[in-house]
Formats: sequence, structure tokens, C-alpha cells
Amino acid sequence: MKKLINDPGEVVDAALAGLAAAHPDLRVDAKQRIVVRADAPVAGKVGLVSGGGSGHEPLHAGFVGHGMLDAACPGEIFTSPVPDQILAATTAVDAGAGVLHIVKNYTGDVMNFEMAAELAADSGVEVLPVVVNDDVAVQDSLYTAGRRGVGATVIVEKMAGAAAQQGRPLAEVARIAEKVNAESRSMGMALTSCTTPAAGRPTFDLGEHEMEIGIGIHGEPGRMRVPLAAAHEVAAMLVEPILADLPFSQGDRVLCFLNGMGGTPLLELYLMFDEVSRILRGHGVEIERALVGPYITALEMAGCSVTLTRLDEEMTTLWDAPVRTPALRWGM
Amino acid sequence: MKKLINDPGEVVDAALAGLAAAHPDLRVDAKQRIVVRADAPVAGKVGLVSGGGSGHEPLHAGFVGHGMLDAACPGEIFTSPVPDQILAATTAVDAGAGVLHIVKNYTGDVMNFEMAAELAADSGVEVLPVVVNDDVAVQDSLYTAGRRGVGATVIVEKMAGAAAQQGRPLAEVARIAEKVNAESRSMGMALTSCTTPAAGRPTFDLGEHEMEIGIGIHGEPGRMRVPLAAAHEVAAMLVEPILADLPFSQGDRVLCFLNGMGGTPLLELYLMFDEVSRILRGHGVEIERALVGPYITALEMAGCSVTLTRLDEEMTTLWDAPVRTPALRWGM
Repeated sequence: MKKLINDPGEVVDAALAGLAAAHPDLRVDAKQRIVVRADAPVAGKVGLVSGGGSGHEPLHAGFVGHGMLDAACPGEIFTSPVPDQILAATTAVDAGAGVLHIVKNYTGDVMNFEMAAELAADSGVEVLPVVVNDDVAVQDSLYTAGRRGVGATVIVEKMAGAAAQQGRPLAEVARIAEKVNAESRSMGMALTSCTTPAAGRPTFDLGEHEMEIGIGIHGEPGRMRVPLAAAHEVAAMLVEPILADLPFSQGDRVLCFLNGMGGTPLLELYLMFDEVSRILRGHGVEIERALVGPYITALEMAGCSVTLTRLDEEMTTLWDAPVRTPALRWGM
Repeated sequence: MKKLINDPGEVVDAALAGLAAAHPDLRVDAKQRIVVRADAPVAGKVGLVSGGGSGHEPLHAGFVGHGMLDAACPGEIFTSPVPDQILAATTAVDAGAGVLHIVKNYTGDVMNFEMAAELAADSGVEVLPVVVNDDVAVQDSLYTAGRRGVGATVIVEKMAGAAAQQGRPLAEVARIAEKVNAESRSMGMALTSCTTPAAGRPTFDLGEHEMEIGIGIHGEPGRMRVPLAAAHEVAAMLVEPILADLPFSQGDRVLCFLNGMGGTPLLELYLMFDEVSRILRGHGVEIERALVGPYITALEMAGCSVTLTRLDEEMTTLWDAPVRTPALRWGM
């Protein structure tokens, strides 16, 4: 295993220490293992909390800050955060206006966020959850009943975060989050596996001339394992199922998010963006906003995912609103 | 070779097409192979041009925009851009105030930028060059006489870009660029090699239990090949030579840039940032600004580099100035 680590059991804590050292805008509670906006709780503002297993960086801690999340709860690598941790994040950001939980649809995450929400309610904090489930690849999966939550999580966190920053009430912020999830579809693929420090060997095996289409962000099986193909064929294998699913129609305007899985160079991601944009043009779907880069990853996995979010004016305005986080920043 | 590409010979052009599709703020001239700010030339402003081999993305095209570069000239992968291409970029951004060439110290780059500068002078465009040579690892190298130009290039482009955006004259922008280079030192390391699409096999061989300390961004040999070590040992192998070289002293305030080589997860980069910050604290060097992520890469190479830039008030102000490029954006 070739990794820049010390003790395999202390990777997450050490990375959080580095996050704190690099970003004075964040407050890292090492004991509770939560990352919070330094100015939280923000008076009158709905709090946004997300979290999940580590190994998907910058998701979620890299999206904590003005205009996005108020707190993130990183679990161990590819492991759900625990209820107490989520509860600590929830109470840390509650300013009396309630807290939105943004939860990727994995059984452990959903269960632990539910338990935390109940505990928070007991102590008088109103919590609403939104479960993100945008992955069209498979219906159920290794850690999931229903569809997995993947790339749309980034878009939900950005747009709901903007709504909360504008001072909108909890029900309204939840409505935005649900709407973004409903208007988003994703699918990913892998050229290689990835290795968690604790395991020390690849999460799954993939032959030298194979790739996995519809991969999950923990290496869960996808739709099919196929021989290596050209980028334009890969793009079609991802985009056509996405378009057919919502379905997206001619004249739709979208946010096109070309995500890297961690080990794929930006050069290839832009090449893939070109292929995806050609397919969208062929369907009369217009790219109104774009995001290209590794934003929801699976450690050093080589591969990519495509997320399309159908935009209306409300959503575009929320996307464009100022944001200041380690991984996404503009307007301030 | 597992890559998201079509024809290995068309990777750069296809990626540039994707860059154009994703970023309407940029104008991509596919024929000349240059990437230019859509609003260039900007009246009264000194133009900033950089370039070099592709494969180091987001460097340089990802740094074109308000407050940073006016144009980038990407060569083939790990291959210098040609003089005509650099000349085209230079004339495209010249608004009569002259043009600064930011050149990484590789023999081909230096020669071709010099030829382009002479051709530009013949057509009445004043050009000043700055050669970046911040890599303390080795004196000469595979493609270099003297020290290689690596991470400081990003810092030079940002700070000189801010100075140009403020309307400062060419000599003053060149002075800033020279100063940033003089105050910066870098060193990198690799856990794995990388594969160019044209070659189809790793650029160099590295054993399963070895790493290369002082690696170049094209896989050029470094100072030493050593057995895998813990992150804190790797950090010391990079930071101590950097500190001793300038030298940095107790009380210095620095920009600490922890760069990913392309294939290393952000989790490991933050862990490394923690290790680097501990060493700096031990030397009484204070981190005033931080940059963490893959900004100057070697395709999918796993590894990292550290760049330290000694800051004064002028430089910190230039770093903080608004910037709007695909890869670096704040304040607007």
C-alpha cells in the first residue's frame, strides 16, 4: 500500500488536524470529530449539517463555510458517522431556526442521522432531513436500499446552503434541498479500484482491461463490467441512462457536473466534459452552469461520474450565490 | 493503460474543447492552441502569458482569468509549447502595455519563450520574461540547466497577476514576479510513476516499496530513492531542505502550498499539511496563508510537493486580491 500516512488507524484525525491548520475559517472539534464554521451558530440562520464516511474528500468537510454547510461529521473511511457525533454537530450549529440534515442514501448514514435527529428533538432542536438518492445506476446496492446518494449531494449542499444563508426558514430550505435532489441524476464509472488504509489492499478487483460502469463511491458493484472503451463510448454509457431517467428533454437547461473519482487527471476530466457536452447538444439539452473536478471521490480510484441537475431560475440564482469553503469558493 | 481518452494523439485538443465548453469566460483558439481570457486584451493592462507541457493541469490553462493569467499555451503532454504558439498568445493579450512571460525553468520552455519574445519584439510588443526555478531538490536535471520550476509557478502567476490587474506597469509586474520566485522554495516526492497517453507505459519504474524524494513534475530523478516511510518522515525529507535553502528563519511568515501530484487523495494531502505545519512550528515559521490541493500535477502520479513562499505585506495583499479562474477563485 503506497500512501502518505502514519498509522492507518489515525488517518482521519490527522487529516482533520491538517484541515484546521490550513483553514482558520473552520473550527475542528477533534474529540467530537466535527468540523464547524468558526462563526457558528449564525444568529437567525437555519443550520446545515452533512456527513458520511471519510474518503470522499472534499465532501463534506471541504464544503463547510459561508453559503454552504455549517458543519460536517466525518466518519471513519467509508464508514457512517455515529449518532452522538451528528448530534454534537447539530447542536453546535443550531441558532434556534432549526437544522437541516443532508444525508446520502446509505443504510448506516440514514439510520444514524435519524437517531441523531430524534436525540436533537429531545433537546428542543427542530431537525428536517433530506435524503439524497440521485444515482441511476442500480436500484439497491451493497450498503443501500433504493438508490445511492452521490454527486447531487454537492449540488444540494450548495443550493440549500445558499437558501439558508439568505435567511430562509427551515421548511423552505428543506424544500430547496428536496427539489435539487428531485431534479438531479448521476452515474459513475471506475477504471481502477481503491485501497482503504485499514484494509491495505484494493476494495475490489478489476482486470487490466476492464472497467466498471455504474460504480458506487465505495466501490460497490455497478450495472456492468465491460472491456475498456474510448472516452466517447464511456460518456454515452453514463449520460444516456441519466437523460432517460428523469427524463431530461430538449430545451432543458442543466448544471453539468463532471466529477473525478480521485485518481483521474483533470486533463481527462475536461476531455470527458467535451464528450458529455456533445451528447447533451445532440439531445438539445443546454449546459447553463458547469463544475469540473474531484469533488466527491473514492480515495485514489481512477474514474469519473456525471451529474446533471435541471435548472430553473431559482436554482441558478442559488448556485451563483457567494460561497466561501475550502473546496468551493466564489463571490467572496 | 487505463485512461479516459479517445485517440492518444488528440488528448490535449479534446481537453481544450472541454475547457471551452465548461468555461465561457475563456476563449480557446483550437488552431493556435492557446487559451485566452475572453475579455483580452484588457485596455491599459500588462498581459501575462505562461505555458509549458500539458499534463500538469490545472496549470496553466486553469489559471487564466481575471487577476491571474491572460493566456496559456499548452504544449503536447510533457512537451514545450512552440514559439509561434507563444507568439500568438503574446499578441492576443497585448494591449500596448507590454507582456510578461512566466516560464518554468526547462531548457525547451526557456528557449521557445525567448524566441517568441524576440518575434514579439519585432512586431513592436515589449516582453519581459521571468524564469521560475524554485525546486531545491537538484541543481541540474533531465530537461533543465539549473533548478527546475515547479510549485512557485502557481504563486508567481497569482501575485504577478494581481499586480497586473491593478494596472501596474510591466517593469513593476516583472519585479513582483522575480520577488515571488526569489522568496519561494519547493520540493516534491512520488509514490508512483505516471503514464503519458503517447507512451502507454510508466515514465519511470518505482518499486513496490520505494519512493522518489525530490522528483520532478515529469518524473525526472530526484535526490534519492528510499524505502517507503511514514508521512511525518516524508514531510521532514521535503521541508528541512526547503527551510535550509533560502534559508527561512524563525519569525518568518509563509504561504504554505501543499500540492498534490495528481493521484493522491485530498485526505492524504491534509494529513501531510498537518505534518508540514508541525515542522514549521518547530522552526518558529508561521503559516499565514495556505493552499492545499492538486494545482501543479504530473498526470496521475501519486505524491505531493511542498512550496513555501516567504510573505511580506505586499505579497499577502496580492495573494488575497480577487481572482476568477477555473482553478483558483475568490473575491468575485
